[in-house]
Amino acid sequence: MQATQAQLNMNFIGHEAVLGEGDSFQAFAPASHAYLSDEFTNVTVEQADQAVGKAVAAFAAYGKLHPGQRADFLDAIAAEIEALGDELIERAVLESGLPTGRITGERGRTTGQLRMFASLLREGSWVDARINPALPDRQPLPRPDLRRMLVPLGPVVVFGASNFPLAFSVAGGDTASALAAGCPVIVKAHPSHPGTSSLAGQAIIEAARKTGMPDGIFSLLHADNEVAQALVAHPDVKAVGFTGSRRGGLALLKVAQERPEPIPVYAEMSAVNPVVILPGGISDQAGTSVCEKVAAGLAASVTLGVGQFCTNPGLVFLLDSPLTESFLETVAEKIRASAPATMLNAGIHSAYKKGVQQIRVLPGVHVLAEAETEADDERTEGRSAVLTTTAPLFLSNTDLSQEIFGPSSLVVICQTEAELADCLQSLEGQLTATLFATPDELRQSSVDWVTLLQTKAGRVLFGGYPTGVEVCEAMTHGGPFPATSDSRTTSVGSGAILRFVRPVTYQSFPDALLPLALQNANPLGIWRNVDGNLTKESC
Amino acid sequence: MQATQAQLNMNFIGHEAVLGEGDSFQAFAPASHAYLSDEFTNVTVEQADQAVGKAVAAFAAYGKLHPGQRADFLDAIAAEIEALGDELIERAVLESGLPTGRITGERGRTTGQLRMFASLLREGSWVDARINPALPDRQPLPRPDLRRMLVPLGPVVVFGASNFPLAFSVAGGDTASALAAGCPVIVKAHPSHPGTSSLAGQAIIEAARKTGMPDGIFSLLHADNEVAQALVAHPDVKAVGFTGSRRGGLALLKVAQERPEPIPVYAEMSAVNPVVILPGGISDQAGTSVCEKVAAGLAASVTLGVGQFCTNPGLVFLLDSPLTESFLETVAEKIRASAPATMLNAGIHSAYKKGVQQIRVLPGVHVLAEAETEADDERTEGRSAVLTTTAPLFLSNTDLSQEIFGPSSLVVICQTEAELADCLQSLEGQLTATLFATPDELRQSSVDWVTLLQTKAGRVLFGGYPTGVEVCEAMTHGGPFPATSDSRTTSVGSGAILRFVRPVTYQSFPDALLPLALQNANPLGIWRNVDGNLTKESC
Repeated sequence: MQATQAQLNMNFIGHEAVLGEGDSFQAFAPASHAYLSDEFTNVTVEQADQAVGKAVAAFAAYGKLHPGQRADFLDAIAAEIEALGDELIERAVLESGLPTGRITGERGRTTGQLRMFASLLREGSWVDARINPALPDRQPLPRPDLRRMLVPLGPVVVFGASNFPLAFSVAGGDTASALAAGCPVIVKAHPSHPGTSSLAGQAIIEAARKTGMPDGIFSLLHADNEVAQALVAHPDVKAVGFTGSRRGGLALLKVAQERPEPIPVYAEMSAVNPVVILPGGISDQAGTSVCEKVAAGLAASVTLGVGQFCTNPGLVFLLDSPLTESFLETVAEKIRASAPATMLNAGIHSAYKKGVQQIRVLPGVHVLAEAETEADDERTEGRSAVLTTTAPLFLSNTDLSQEIFGPSSLVVICQTEAELADCLQSLEGQLTATLFATPDELRQSSVDWVTLLQTKAGRVLFGGYPTGVEVCEAMTHGGPFPATSDSRTTSVGSGAILRFVRPVTYQSFPDALLPLALQNANPLGIWRNVDGNLTKESC
Repeated sequence: MQATQAQLNMNFIGHEAVLGEGDSFQAFAPASHAYLSDEFTNVTVEQADQAVGKAVAAFAAYGKLHPGQRADFLDAIAAEIEALGDELIERAVLESGLPTGRITGERGRTTGQLRMFASLLREGSWVDARINPALPDRQPLPRPDLRRMLVPLGPVVVFGASNFPLAFSVAGGDTASALAAGCPVIVKAHPSHPGTSSLAGQAIIEAARKTGMPDGIFSLLHADNEVAQALVAHPDVKAVGFTGSRRGGLALLKVAQERPEPIPVYAEMSAVNPVVILPGGISDQAGTSVCEKVAAGLAASVTLGVGQFCTNPGLVFLLDSPLTESFLETVAEKIRASAPATMLNAGIHSAYKKGVQQIRVLPGVHVLAEAETEADDERTEGRSAVLTTTAPLFLSNTDLSQEIFGPSSLVVICQTEAELADCLQSLEGQLTATLFATPDELRQSSVDWVTLLQTKAGRVLFGGYPTGVEVCEAMTHGGPFPATSDSRTTSVGSGAILRFVRPVTYQSFPDALLPLALQNANPLGIWRNVDGNLTKESC
């Protein structure tokens, strides 16, 4: 990589590094609560249009590449990100306030995702090829030759998230899965980490040049809300990926729905990730102190990363039992001992403080514990808090089921299974739902807890904690509205690629005119469904 | 089947046959242009709510059934439809004006679809099971056990189509795929064929009783628009299937988007199904008169079923060549010789006449040919018509690219490849796009015609005619907006089941608490993705 420093503040309209012709702004360092010296420039609507125009041209060329070439591009992005070395890590730490260890881990997650999609492309079966060969002699009518596979939607706009400056941002999961699917990507950078964004964007452009990708396959834009909405409204944009607030996600969804041609918006927006604890789930077994372990684990999950995860457990439903007191005491002890830490930006920090404050003053809500150490800097550091309330109160006030983004959780103590079931039934859609219980008590209960939680969430955990989202084939990081805007999808794991494709059927095509995945000889060697049977054979 | 005649005019709220408490109406026989004596009753919003309430209860019970039991239910529906015998055929002929042969064929398609989904369920791999077993020793962090499969969305509302009183109606593809997916179905019957609808509904209820399905797994409602919209707005309804007009589909989409929890609407709305003819595609080869054959085939496709198919070829783009005259002459001859025939209902008939009239009076639009025989009944019978125009005129008037539902087509004669490409580029999304050409001329052309058509349609044909939609694994009956409201899906073929499911991940579950599809022993014997490899082995 060359001249990184010189390009730290650049936009990329396709391969071209340019200054925005809109407003300029400075990055903010949350740990020092100070603006940084580098000046960033927002692009104008006209510049954003140029990026879309280049993406349209790139789409046609990119679609003609062998899947292996797309894979090489993704691998090259991972290598270029690694080649940025400490400069990327330091910048991300500076702009996010997150610790170096966390950012280093997140870089590994980012490059791992890119390489996972590269190997998915090389294996190739993800295109869900289906072949029904012609039956010319069928009665009463012959059947034509029909072959179907998944093809890319077209240019995709991705909105980076503030809480994962690498893994859910410029070169994150949305970008990796859209590029893997065959779609050009235009990233609208998150203003919380503009320098990190530019560096990651530069890595992608460098990888595109080195692997001969068409100009326009990727653009990185710093932009205000007006330009962001214009991008979503642009007729040549065919899908949107977003991770962030509910308000932000819904605003983009509205723009997308009101287009003459509506397009899919994959917005991962908000969740409180309920944790349900039945007495058996914290009963001591064979001398192990399960109750203490679960309570300590919960407190650790609530405070992890200053609570700034979409999967943070914000609600705990505890079925009252003789263990309640001891459970709560351990949680309280751990929360009191937790250290305040810098939050991602001033807006998140003040929203967190305000959110906790609004709840704690309600009659019937009690503060179980707060971090005892005062914050070094009241303007930036979040202090953990766990509150308690009762099921009737919870049910009577929908404010209590809203997400407070940060290291807090509300424990709802339920007196009966019916109360607990009512509470769960009242919840909106969630990314995760966790159940602590024994198989025996599940069998004996009159409520089907697993099914109840499954209707509410994209991932159901038996024990464990929802923070920590594995990147793998079996992950669902999604869930019913408003956890996401489209419950049929995941934004993490190999399934994320399915968001950016649609099926196309080719009828009666000469073999040579078919895409490789559908040709008789199966030149890609992929699994295909031929008349209902999965096979790698030719047909 | 018992007491069919007595129940011809019934609604079914779950298993219970009831009269609607709303307005009453009579069926209409298009062939005789007369109302029939049977009186049907629309349900009220309250009755529709009861159906949804029953569906919610049934959803929980239905989800616990072995996939084989759902398959038995679908097979039983097919058997009950056949058991209705001639009564169903005669009623459908009476209410649709379609010939007996066509309706008999459509019944075969309907029962075939149901049995296809039954065998898909028995094979079982469609749930896309993915397993990443735990890696307790992985560094730096252990990996939990993660297992993911597709689960049903919940109660689905289906709107029957007027043009397929069996195959896209009460027991049609939407109902079959939603029931197969595990979703209860509430059908809003099309008022064009209420008796046919009640008979099919009765067959489904009979099958549900015989196979022990929960009350509420299926409801059939006659209803007005207000009740229809209330169904789509009901918080417990989780998806909508629709086949019909663009106006109708967009109205439902709007209701679904404005819900507090938006839900997917799968509306198959409109298409003009462009047919592109390059000179090579109609050049005579080895003594065969290709030109005449293609022209005659096209005329047959335009007039098939009085043009009342979503895949009717409404636009033909002909690249001008020495063959133009002879091609058009054959088309004209066939169209002139075509017989007028009864259309589905008075609304469709008058919209067709009006649509053709609006186009034919435009300067630069010429009538190439019309059916020469006068209609026996001007109020009901549609007469075929083919018109011609030029590319510049086509490009200057978007009215010319709108669907006219019926046996007409507009031939746009293009002077250059660039003109032709501009015309195609201007089109909205389509169900199908057809290309007549030789592989040689495609290679030599400066335009990538296949890719251009693929961006516009869900199914691309090389030669052949778009009417005739095979029910199979490889079919895509879908396409970019406004052909459908969701280009990522198909409403015909086994892929239709994917519209009514979402992925759910189970983390760290005891084996016995997992769904069968995800248990270690693979008791269903399905294909599963285990750490990226497809296998039927246990894990």
